[in-house]
Amino acid sequence: MASRASKKPVWVVDKERQKRGVDARSLWLFGIHAVRDALKNPARRKERLIVTKNALDRLRDDIDAAGLTPEICDARKFSAPLEPQAVHQGAALEVRPLDWGSVSEICAPRGDTPLVILLDRVSDPHNVGAVLRSAEVFGARAVIATTRHAAPETGALAKTASGALERQPYLRVQNLAGAMRALQQMGYYLIGLDGEADHTFDDALAKRPDLPLAVVLGAEGPGLRALSKTNCDALARIEYAGDFGSLNVSNAAAVALYAASKHLRG
Amino acid sequence: MASRASKKPVWVVDKERQKRGVDARSLWLFGIHAVRDALKNPARRKERLIVTKNALDRLRDDIDAAGLTPEICDARKFSAPLEPQAVHQGAALEVRPLDWGSVSEICAPRGDTPLVILLDRVSDPHNVGAVLRSAEVFGARAVIATTRHAAPETGALAKTASGALERQPYLRVQNLAGAMRALQQMGYYLIGLDGEADHTFDDALAKRPDLPLAVVLGAEGPGLRALSKTNCDALARIEYAGDFGSLNVSNAAAVALYAASKHLRG
Repeated sequence: MASRASKKPVWVVDKERQKRGVDARSLWLFGIHAVRDALKNPARRKERLIVTKNALDRLRDDIDAAGLTPEICDARKFSAPLEPQAVHQGAALEVRPLDWGSVSEICAPRGDTPLVILLDRVSDPHNVGAVLRSAEVFGARAVIATTRHAAPETGALAKTASGALERQPYLRVQNLAGAMRALQQMGYYLIGLDGEADHTFDDALAKRPDLPLAVVLGAEGPGLRALSKTNCDALARIEYAGDFGSLNVSNAAAVALYAASKHLRG
Repeated sequence: MASRASKKPVWVVDKERQKRGVDARSLWLFGIHAVRDALKNPARRKERLIVTKNALDRLRDDIDAAGLTPEICDARKFSAPLEPQAVHQGAALEVRPLDWGSVSEICAPRGDTPLVILLDRVSDPHNVGAVLRSAEVFGARAVIATTRHAAPETGALAKTASGALERQPYLRVQNLAGAMRALQQMGYYLIGLDGEADHTFDDALAKRPDLPLAVVLGAEGPGLRALSKTNCDALARIEYAGDFGSLNVSNAAAVALYAASKHLRG
């Protein structure tokens, strides 16, 4: 967990991050909610805070609690390096990516039946943000994606995640096949979502042995890569009524999380 | 249905649209997929098509079938009036909004148990686009929103809807309370999603009489307005495991559509 890492010297933390492939560069979070959630998170390393007078008034308690000295900026000349269309609401916070720890640390079953989401090359930050948000709501242990070909932690992702980026483990791994094997060795049963699968997701859940569960989702369009499909224990499609269309990947994840968490609780 | 309306004189169609509060102004669809889906839709009134040479090659068959004369444009000077960040892929089509007909025409039960989604002031076009897409996948009869305070048909909405805007009825009404009453008079049972409701959505479905079903969703943050809550037959929350967070509105809609269509089929 990030809170443990902060007790180690910075160079040790950085070396461990590099080993794990975590992007060590800083990023800018923006918007009152995203900045407030990051300020409240003791595990989040904060570097610079730029706020307007108005945003300062709204965030003052959390800024004080975090022990940060804000740079006050005129609303018309907001100086944080954000995309022009970023709805920053007068607040921008430069932070370091969170280091949640390894797949084995975070996903190991602890006498329960955990649920994990894997994303195979889902690169749209809005989709990944929404998946993190749903993963938190339905109590998933982690969302796992690759270091490359996946959405990095950015302000846009944080804003879509609506606070979940601070609380929901988002693990980046060098390759997904390795993470899938690691999960299987920990006892996980892996169901890949595939619109052309013979079985429905409900059937796959019903037939699944009483094991921890991981659901693997691919990007819209290409779907799961061939190797990812091969590495799953089962492939399944979400049952639907229409002949046309497919679900947006974050909506497919929400349905899978709902159905799986209902099944695991049930 | 839009295909019927096209046989009437234009002035009659326009007058009927005005009565119904449908926005008669044209809009620009963009991106290869959105433009292709609109070209394939005979009910869609098309006004101007601007394409690059490359996009023309990709869309030629559909342009020919639609009987449209495209304006060819240099990729570096793309002349369609789009937002600067619009990913147009060299294709933009000016169209008129679709006129699906009235709530009573589209939603009347026909010996089946239809499912309808109502949106109470959901104004983000990406959310509404994703809801249309999920509504089509799970076979909802219509998505109903108000004329004002809701996302208008735009290119951004069409792109997120990924073709569903051409196929999934999206009805705009003067006021939601009137549409809710009209649905109840047609025999619909109305469940409003409310994070603070005592009952879960699954319980509400289980207790629901054997009637057509409408699910009402509010905007993120404010949720359902007080009047909308009062007009529902039941309020329910989506069951979840976590203590934190809430679902994005399109993800909540996807879960409700999945759970409801499973229940109605089951």
